[in-house]
Amino acid sequence: MRSVSHHQLEAFVRRCLVALKMPERHATIVAALMTDADLNGSDGHGVFRLPQYVKRIRSGGLNLQPNIHLAEDKGAMALVDGDNGMGHLVMHFATELAMERAGEHGVSWVGVRHSNHAGPAALYARMPLKRDMIGIYVAVGSANHLPPWGGTEMLLSTNPIAVAIPSNEEPPIVLDMATTVAAYGKVKTAAQRGEQIPEGWMIDELGNPLTDPARANEGFLLPIGGPKGYGLSLVFGLLAGTLNGAAFGKDVVDFNADSMSFTNTGHFVVALAVEAFSDIAAFKRNVDAAIRSMKASPTLPGFDAVRVPGERSFQVRCQRERSGIPIPDALFDSLAALAESLDTEMLSES
Amino acid sequence: MRSVSHHQLEAFVRRCLVALKMPERHATIVAALMTDADLNGSDGHGVFRLPQYVKRIRSGGLNLQPNIHLAEDKGAMALVDGDNGMGHLVMHFATELAMERAGEHGVSWVGVRHSNHAGPAALYARMPLKRDMIGIYVAVGSANHLPPWGGTEMLLSTNPIAVAIPSNEEPPIVLDMATTVAAYGKVKTAAQRGEQIPEGWMIDELGNPLTDPARANEGFLLPIGGPKGYGLSLVFGLLAGTLNGAAFGKDVVDFNADSMSFTNTGHFVVALAVEAFSDIAAFKRNVDAAIRSMKASPTLPGFDAVRVPGERSFQVRCQRERSGIPIPDALFDSLAALAESLDTEMLSES
Repeated sequence: MRSVSHHQLEAFVRRCLVALKMPERHATIVAALMTDADLNGSDGHGVFRLPQYVKRIRSGGLNLQPNIHLAEDKGAMALVDGDNGMGHLVMHFATELAMERAGEHGVSWVGVRHSNHAGPAALYARMPLKRDMIGIYVAVGSANHLPPWGGTEMLLSTNPIAVAIPSNEEPPIVLDMATTVAAYGKVKTAAQRGEQIPEGWMIDELGNPLTDPARANEGFLLPIGGPKGYGLSLVFGLLAGTLNGAAFGKDVVDFNADSMSFTNTGHFVVALAVEAFSDIAAFKRNVDAAIRSMKASPTLPGFDAVRVPGERSFQVRCQRERSGIPIPDALFDSLAALAESLDTEMLSES
Repeated sequence: MRSVSHHQLEAFVRRCLVALKMPERHATIVAALMTDADLNGSDGHGVFRLPQYVKRIRSGGLNLQPNIHLAEDKGAMALVDGDNGMGHLVMHFATELAMERAGEHGVSWVGVRHSNHAGPAALYARMPLKRDMIGIYVAVGSANHLPPWGGTEMLLSTNPIAVAIPSNEEPPIVLDMATTVAAYGKVKTAAQRGEQIPEGWMIDELGNPLTDPARANEGFLLPIGGPKGYGLSLVFGLLAGTLNGAAFGKDVVDFNADSMSFTNTGHFVVALAVEAFSDIAAFKRNVDAAIRSMKASPTLPGFDAVRVPGERSFQVRCQRERSGIPIPDALFDSLAALAESLDTEMLSES
C-alpha cells in the first residue's frame, strides 16, 4: 500500500486524460471529481476506475470532444444530452445547471441522457452543498446484476441514490446507497480475497443463498427489503433512464464487459435551494440537532455508536487530506503501466 | 365480512364529516380520497382510519376551517401551510398545485407543513397520472417505531415514499413503500390474529429477533437493508419534515396515542410533466415495454409470476369497482356506532 497526496493524484489523472487528447479544461474537471471520490473514501469509484475509462477512450467508446447541450429546457426542468462524453463531465455540467436553476426557481430537476459512468453517486449530490442547497442524484447503474423480484433475468442494476443535506457544525448528511443489499464491487473484492460473502447478499438461480463469490456469475444480487428494493431500482431506472431517453433494462450496456458500445447512461440530479423554504442558518441548526439526537441514542449490544450517513466519509476525507490517499500495490502498478503507455510522468508517493 | 359499493362508502364518509361540521366541499374531497384508498386495496389507510380521524376532530386536534395557504412560492417550488387541516385536504391542495406548476415549469416540488395523516402515500403519487405526469410523494410517518441503525431510541418513522409512473396499455407503475421491512400496521394485524411475525421484521432492545407481536412494544421495526433503510428514513424525514418546518424526530406526535396535540405533519410532493422530457405516447409505450420485459422474466422456484408495483392494487380496484369493498365485521360495527353517535344514516350493504 502506498500513499499519495490528493494534489499529486489529481495532477496525475489530469496528465493521463490530457495525454489521451481530452481538452485541458475537461481533464481539469474530471480529475478533480475523480480525486474527490478517493478523498471521500469511495475507493471503488475513484482513480481505481481510471484504467477502465482509459480503455473505453482508446476503444473509441467515449467522445472526447462532446457537445454537451440542452435537449429540453423549461427553466426549473432541463434535459441534458451528454453527447457520449465522460460521465463526470456531463454530470458536472448538469449539476452546475441544476444549482443555477434552483437559485431562480427554488427547485430544479435536470435529467441526463447519452452520458457514461460518472463515479460515485455522492459526488453530484454533494456539489449543491457549497451553495446551501440540498442535492439528490440517481443513476442507472452500468451493469445489470439484479432480476425483478421473483424472477431470474438480470434486467436491473443497483441504480443508486445519493442525497446530501447541508448542516452547520456537524458534517453534512450524505447518503449514497445502492438499491441492493451489497454493491457488486463488494462481491468482487471478496472473491479477490478468497473470502465468503454473507447470506443475504446473493442467491443462485434456484433461490438458494450464494455465499461463494467465485460463483457470483451463477447468481444475482438481492434487493434491499425484497420487493421494495426491486421497486426502487425499477422506478429509479425509469426516472433516470427511460424518462430521459437513456438506456434501461435490456438496453443497459455492461461497461465492464464492453468498452466500445455507447452506453447511453442516464442520470438525474435535483437541487433544492434551502433559502426558498426557510432561513438557511435556522435550517442548518435544525439538521445539526437532528444529527445530534440520532447520535445521542443509546446503542444496541455490538454497536459502539450510532452514525449518520456521511459521517464516515467526512472522517476519511479529513484524514486523507492530511495524510494522503492510500493506493493498493496492484492499483499502483496498473497506474504505472498506464503512465508508461501514455508516456507521462507516474504518480509519486507523498 | 360485508361488502359495500364504493359509491355508498364515499357518501357515508362524506355524511359523517359533514355531520362533524366539516365544510361540504372539503368533505367531498376527503371522502373521495379515503374511498380511493379502499378501492386501491390500502385497507389499513382508508375508511378503517375514519373512527380515529373522528376522534381527533372531536378532541379539537384538527382544524375544520383551515386556511390552507402558500407560506413560500417560487413558481416551480412552493411551501404549503395546511393550518392543521385534515391531511387529505391539505395534500389534495398541494398536489393540485404541484400539477399546475409542473405544467408550466416541467417539474414542481411542493413541501407541506402543519398537515396531518393523509392516508396511503400512493394517493398523492397517483393524482398526477391523469395529467400524464409522474408523481412522487414522501411523508413523515405519524408515529416513531424505528431507531437509528445501531440505536435503541425510536426517533424515526416508517417515512414512506410513493412513486407513480404513467403507462399505456399496462396498469401504471405505482410503488408505495415504507422504509421499514414491515409497516407497524402489519404487526398489529398479526397480534390481533394471534399469529407470529417473521424474523427480520422486528428486534428487541438486545438486538434479538422479536417474533411475538404481542411483545411489539418491547422492540422496534427494522429498516430495509439495515443502515440503508435507516438512511432513507432519515433523509426523507429531513426533506418532508425539517425542510418544511414540520415535525421530525423527537417532535413527531404519535397520532394513535394522542388525538389532541397538533401533529405538524410534513410531506412533499413532486410532479414531473412527461411532455417536458419526451413525446408522451412514446414514453408510455416505453414504460409498457419495461413492464412487459420484467413480467417476461423466468421465475424463481416458489414464484408463480413476476409482478410490478401497482399491479396488485390495479387488480383489486377493478374487482372492487365491480363487486364492492369488503368491510370486516369489527370495522362495520365501529362505523355503525359512529353513524349512530353522529345521528347519520349508516352504510348499507351492496
